[in-house]
Amino acid sequence: MSSGAEMIFTGDELLRGDAINTNQAFLGEKLIDLGIFAARALCIADDQAAIASAIRESLAREPLVLILSGGLGPTDDDLTREAVAEALGVPLELHRDLLEEIREKFASRGYIMGDSNRKQAFLPRGAAAIPIAGTAPGLSIQYGRTLIAALPGVPWEMEEMWTGTVEPLVRALADSVNGRSHVVRRIRTFGIGESSVADLLTEFEWRGSLVEIGTRAKLDGLWVILRGMDSPEGLSALEATQARIIELLGDKVLGVDCEGLPELVGDLIRNAGMTLAVAESCTGGLLGKRVTDVPGSSDYFLGGVISYSNAVKTKVLGVPEETLAAHGAVSPEVAKAMASGVAAFLGSDCALSITGVAGPGGGTEEKPIGLVYVGSVLGEAVEVERLWLWGRRDQVRERAALSALDILRRRLLPRGRDR
Amino acid sequence: MSSGAEMIFTGDELLRGDAINTNQAFLGEKLIDLGIFAARALCIADDQAAIASAIRESLAREPLVLILSGGLGPTDDDLTREAVAEALGVPLELHRDLLEEIREKFASRGYIMGDSNRKQAFLPRGAAAIPIAGTAPGLSIQYGRTLIAALPGVPWEMEEMWTGTVEPLVRALADSVNGRSHVVRRIRTFGIGESSVADLLTEFEWRGSLVEIGTRAKLDGLWVILRGMDSPEGLSALEATQARIIELLGDKVLGVDCEGLPELVGDLIRNAGMTLAVAESCTGGLLGKRVTDVPGSSDYFLGGVISYSNAVKTKVLGVPEETLAAHGAVSPEVAKAMASGVAAFLGSDCALSITGVAGPGGGTEEKPIGLVYVGSVLGEAVEVERLWLWGRRDQVRERAALSALDILRRRLLPRGRDR
Repeated sequence: MSSGAEMIFTGDELLRGDAINTNQAFLGEKLIDLGIFAARALCIADDQAAIASAIRESLAREPLVLILSGGLGPTDDDLTREAVAEALGVPLELHRDLLEEIREKFASRGYIMGDSNRKQAFLPRGAAAIPIAGTAPGLSIQYGRTLIAALPGVPWEMEEMWTGTVEPLVRALADSVNGRSHVVRRIRTFGIGESSVADLLTEFEWRGSLVEIGTRAKLDGLWVILRGMDSPEGLSALEATQARIIELLGDKVLGVDCEGLPELVGDLIRNAGMTLAVAESCTGGLLGKRVTDVPGSSDYFLGGVISYSNAVKTKVLGVPEETLAAHGAVSPEVAKAMASGVAAFLGSDCALSITGVAGPGGGTEEKPIGLVYVGSVLGEAVEVERLWLWGRRDQVRERAALSALDILRRRLLPRGRDR
Repeated sequence: MSSGAEMIFTGDELLRGDAINTNQAFLGEKLIDLGIFAARALCIADDQAAIASAIRESLAREPLVLILSGGLGPTDDDLTREAVAEALGVPLELHRDLLEEIREKFASRGYIMGDSNRKQAFLPRGAAAIPIAGTAPGLSIQYGRTLIAALPGVPWEMEEMWTGTVEPLVRALADSVNGRSHVVRRIRTFGIGESSVADLLTEFEWRGSLVEIGTRAKLDGLWVILRGMDSPEGLSALEATQARIIELLGDKVLGVDCEGLPELVGDLIRNAGMTLAVAESCTGGLLGKRVTDVPGSSDYFLGGVISYSNAVKTKVLGVPEETLAAHGAVSPEVAKAMASGVAAFLGSDCALSITGVAGPGGGTEEKPIGLVYVGSVLGEAVEVERLWLWGRRDQVRERAALSALDILRRRLLPRGRDR
């Protein structure tokens, strides 16, 4: 781990709670993947003197990287360019080529560049422009030991600029400080917790340090992060470690550096030439929403039935009233009937159903909050799994939808495949 | 606006991007509502010396309030108590009553308190405990001009502690600094932008300063925030301003200090003794999800059909194939047929349908990305509205679901009501 990064976010909207600072999490994760821990992130009001002073204080701590985000727009409270110049004691200089580029960006969308945008073509002396993602150019400048990069605040513009320009610069810097390049592999898993992974991976504890192993827990799964040296022996250790971890974690592994469950399950269904339908009770449509988060999901997703009331379960999905009466709506029998019912009704090859107690009301000793049954249909075979999910209503529902997708994923995996 | 607040968040998970700092937005908004702008928010690693030094630097700027969040748990990297004591140069002292309270919290859930939790009963000398929400007590302490409050990092625990204990303290402090109490009213609106609201409210620009008017734009609507003095003439000006703004904004107003669209629409349907069903195409289940975000929505929500494919639109919802062929799936005719179809199929009094182009693919010159039709059924009457929604796929879908709820809300409002 080389020495750290710092981040400074500007924007009153972040301090007033009008927007949530998602950029910090994005950048923090990207930096960690490069082996750089961001030890401080400051969010500060749109005030030039305060921003300049925050930059100077950060530079005095000599981080490897200082990322600024926000304040690159054309308005009077966009002050990052001015603050960087003030902090470094250099003037702002007009870059005519940049002015032309901004003008062309506007022209290409059929707009005429306003006078206020002219200030976006000024950079502190010594700075390089970072190519425009939206309408605002970014800037980077080396100051002593520290690479300063200023990015926009709009998340997608920031992300494009990070990926396109800043990440390679920071990677090179990290490698040169470490004296070697690193390679990162991210093994994505679902349905296994951090402590279980730690238990399974104890054999790596005393193996020396050719490959660093870390974990990252997120709502949509746990990542096992491997970092190895970019050398023949480093890469070979990395490959061996990756293969062994995938073997140990078995079908909990979604893949390496891969997309999430909705995309993966979608690919498996599409590749099998099949179709999907869903029947949802406690998730109320969230599973369908997750499936259709993926552009192009209409290739395999036919649709579904939100059977929130028992009448819809019986009338539309054909769940027998006796089954509901005997076992209750939250039961393995009803989950299976819902899944078979929606597959038959919509004529799909695969189907998923969810019925459970999401809370905050409705929990009993026998059927507590967090009890969820997932039914799944694949061809002729109907199965059901019982889940105990923790958390509040929204967490139980989110976990239920993802778990359902994971159940279908595991059923769709080629049997006995070599992993 | 009285002088400002600062916030310090601790937790490596926030800096590594494993979690998004939603607490900052929550607290920033609550502080603004009290008339206090949080000019700085620092997120810092779990390092006692660094946290203590950040606290000292903040105290040197003499903010009215310094809110800390995180680091109150029982583990070795929970260091907020220690850092506050170090920053203030006071010892930590055991509070036996607090120890007992923590022990009882564990006992009440059938657990035995671990040894590590003992440290949570220590507070810096002079500090008062803030009652426990989860398992960690918070603390507050006055230092010179600054009220320091340390809250947990877990959002719901932090929110409970803020609302239960800290907010009243901060409100009293703000009032004493201002020399008077303020009253805040939040008028919630939907379907109108910041600039249109500004245009409608120009008449208030030259009216003197008895009532401050601000706006807050969020994805789920725009708030108009009024702040007045807690005095007879202040309250009367506040009432008059509020009434006039509600008159100007008409049915764009959801209410004052009220809940969101899913709750409001749910209450309207429940109070009318009616039921709801939904038919979703491009939102893929998100509308049903939003409706069922509300606990108790099973009182009025029967369920719905996710008619992602055209086959489901015709077979299940009874949309005539000729209508689909003549007008395409994204058309007012199909939206109406979907809404009538699901109401008839599930036997509901109200129904909503959504069909549109969410992107990123599928847009044409005639039917571009962001074109959405919402059908609505109320009793016998079917209506359709065309929406042009901007943003990326997830934003178009989110706005479509909320807009659909708003359309039904407006239809359910008592006719000619006095607003």
